[in-house]
Amino acid sequence: MDPARVIEGLRTIYPADRVLVRPAELAPYESDALTAFRARPVAVVLPQHRDEVVATVRWCYEHRVPFVARGSGTSLSGGSLPVPGGVVIALNRLNRILRLDPEERLAVVEPGVVNLEVSRAAAPYGLYYAPDPSSQPVCTIGGNVAFNSGGAHCLKYGMTSNHVLAIEAVLADGEVVRFGGESQEEVGPDLVGLFVGSEGLFGIALEVTLRLVPRPEAYRTVLAAYRSLEAAGDAVARVVASGILPGAVEIMDRLSIEAAEAAVHAGYPQDAAALLIVELEGEEPEVEAELKELLEVVRASGAYEVRLARDEVDRQRIWKGRKSAFSAVGRLSPDYLVQDGVVPRTRLGEALAEIERLSRRYGLRVANVFHAGDGNLHPLILYDGRRPGELERAEELAGEILRLCIRLGGSITGEHGVGMEKRHYLAEMFSEQDLRVMRRLREAMDPGRIANRGKMFPEAQETAALRTA
Amino acid sequence: MDPARVIEGLRTIYPADRVLVRPAELAPYESDALTAFRARPVAVVLPQHRDEVVATVRWCYEHRVPFVARGSGTSLSGGSLPVPGGVVIALNRLNRILRLDPEERLAVVEPGVVNLEVSRAAAPYGLYYAPDPSSQPVCTIGGNVAFNSGGAHCLKYGMTSNHVLAIEAVLADGEVVRFGGESQEEVGPDLVGLFVGSEGLFGIALEVTLRLVPRPEAYRTVLAAYRSLEAAGDAVARVVASGILPGAVEIMDRLSIEAAEAAVHAGYPQDAAALLIVELEGEEPEVEAELKELLEVVRASGAYEVRLARDEVDRQRIWKGRKSAFSAVGRLSPDYLVQDGVVPRTRLGEALAEIERLSRRYGLRVANVFHAGDGNLHPLILYDGRRPGELERAEELAGEILRLCIRLGGSITGEHGVGMEKRHYLAEMFSEQDLRVMRRLREAMDPGRIANRGKMFPEAQETAALRTA
Repeated sequence: MDPARVIEGLRTIYPADRVLVRPAELAPYESDALTAFRARPVAVVLPQHRDEVVATVRWCYEHRVPFVARGSGTSLSGGSLPVPGGVVIALNRLNRILRLDPEERLAVVEPGVVNLEVSRAAAPYGLYYAPDPSSQPVCTIGGNVAFNSGGAHCLKYGMTSNHVLAIEAVLADGEVVRFGGESQEEVGPDLVGLFVGSEGLFGIALEVTLRLVPRPEAYRTVLAAYRSLEAAGDAVARVVASGILPGAVEIMDRLSIEAAEAAVHAGYPQDAAALLIVELEGEEPEVEAELKELLEVVRASGAYEVRLARDEVDRQRIWKGRKSAFSAVGRLSPDYLVQDGVVPRTRLGEALAEIERLSRRYGLRVANVFHAGDGNLHPLILYDGRRPGELERAEELAGEILRLCIRLGGSITGEHGVGMEKRHYLAEMFSEQDLRVMRRLREAMDPGRIANRGKMFPEAQETAALRTA
Repeated sequence: MDPARVIEGLRTIYPADRVLVRPAELAPYESDALTAFRARPVAVVLPQHRDEVVATVRWCYEHRVPFVARGSGTSLSGGSLPVPGGVVIALNRLNRILRLDPEERLAVVEPGVVNLEVSRAAAPYGLYYAPDPSSQPVCTIGGNVAFNSGGAHCLKYGMTSNHVLAIEAVLADGEVVRFGGESQEEVGPDLVGLFVGSEGLFGIALEVTLRLVPRPEAYRTVLAAYRSLEAAGDAVARVVASGILPGAVEIMDRLSIEAAEAAVHAGYPQDAAALLIVELEGEEPEVEAELKELLEVVRASGAYEVRLARDEVDRQRIWKGRKSAFSAVGRLSPDYLVQDGVVPRTRLGEALAEIERLSRRYGLRVANVFHAGDGNLHPLILYDGRRPGELERAEELAGEILRLCIRLGGSITGEHGVGMEKRHYLAEMFSEQDLRVMRRLREAMDPGRIANRGKMFPEAQETAALRTA
């Protein structure tokens, strides 16, 4: 459709100052956290009320104009990359917590509410919202829902899908529906689960009912240093086999330790080949008992240094190092690709050894930071985009790592989603039949194929996304 | 289609002894645990291999013959009632545990495996399968998946959908697909969750990958007796508010106590108006600490008798009473309807008081046994089917109870499903838009509308089911 007509149409819904069309206004929306992709939309609209979102989707459906919903743009898979010629619906102003019920332990929020704000609002009642992606101070619930976001503590608590009770959404054909309810027992198929993780291909969440959980009474955070990455990986299997269920089990390798230490002075042992972070949480006596067992297991696993977070400040420092590792790696290299694959946790050691071999073969450094407890790897592939061909080599290496994950019985994405980035790997993980049924569902929810068009499915109409590199 | 031609077609797939067609052979398949409905299929087939299931579905799709998959027929909502003129695919012979991996904590099973058999097979590794419907010694995993079965311990562990990692299924058009994987982190929408709870309307599970969890080290089971049902309901809110997360929180009222006691001599206090059963589980020190707190809370809630299960035998006796309550009520009345509704747990007291008023108004006794921790009510409506009009009155009363649940913000089914029984209430709980999207999904998965036709949707083609009563 002619851009001028799209803009004209949107101005029937919004006042002029909430329809962004000038290049300088559009620039911040041209990419998300996967900056290797960039695309310019015709317009960005800034709804302040859910009715405006519904009206926009209906207008887009009627005129077959593609749209992309967007929160803070923290997607690492290009999930909120605009569609050229399409509309971006920026949901950040829909940021009200509509209801917080401490008795029923739930919060009803708009999609633009920032993840951490939910926990802040729930704190006076001793409750919090469990899923904790590293971007939690900025990422929004709408984006968390679209990508079924995880986080370090999802080992114990599960992903976003385990914490969403109900969703009111506008489907891609303008139909407003309500999935789920306030009880955990749903009628029929899990439509909430169908919507969560659908990467914006079905429609836009207007209202999300989140489950809140009681804040743990106590935390114990153990930091263990190892002489090899394999030994740390092996320790994870031992911890899991012992029957302890920690809140989080994380591993950082030498390169990421170095980066995090330089960036935030987390107090990590500088000579370690790998660090294991295990956090226990729960009631005081339970945690104390688990700690005793954990320390035994960790010591027996060959850690040469084991220390316990002294207090909350020390604990926060340990986590700050871990959570800033991605950005800290930026100090070691002008560019890097964040990967996100999953392997069965019993095959972690094997996967890490193979990644090291691949790293040497491609002549590119790979920093490993990962949710070890659930086998969710985050290899960071370091490259220099100014050197011709290096991005392509980094992407090839990333592809080999994903294929390795599939081969070991894992998955091409743990929590970042398929988005733009991994569409081409979908067919390597799923059979033609599996993809067909996904497309049948997409068709049922978005007959016009206008919602986040070009994402997830390899064969979908390509967006004319331009690489910046 | 002409029955003779259906039988002829099925005999191209099965040897004659595995295509049941004679009335005496068909009789056991004419109804499930909701015996008020009864219907005769053209044939029952007994596949011994998944390929036979696939071939049957493909044949049915090609000839537009409806089919119903069935396990042990324990559905309380008529979910496995045959479609007249259709085929029943009885999956009980597909009962192999194909793989049990204690390290990855999972079991891959065929759909006809009995729930309890999974836990038996996992026991040597200190693991078990958590969802525990009362029918667990006979009900099958395929049925559990279709109806997203719960159980007393689902308060802590969640429903079936929280314990299924992957499903290989034949969709209703014969396409064989694989949803999910061995990791808990899925790519895209939760298709496993979509299939779980779909009540057989999408297709048939051929292979299910179940999550196993470590058996708790210790249990403490507390039995508390109250002078009123409301006081017991109120105690539940107090337990939940205290931050304790028990494995199970159950309530039985006077009528169900009486019935259970007469049937299995559970040792329940006979003069109680309501019994509260709270079970703690976990590591020894955690459970001990929680028990101390629980006993304080329960004593402060007005219980006039509080006792702790002395040992495992005593504990099993307490549970035996609870789990046999449904069938035990059969001693008090020639017939009864089991209802299954959900209310927010903060409104339990209100719901119970209203059910009592309704019971008096209709002149029918109602026994209440329920999963109080998650607000899942199981009112048993006692009636005598030989008295003209009494079944109809019981059904009317059941309808009023369901409407009460909806009004209080709950749901028409907690764990028994919609099936035949509640199709007509679906439209009272969901909007026209919500139902439309459900039908769009049904259409995407079963374009021929042959899988379990006539269930769940109120407006779907009615089966000519005959009431026995």
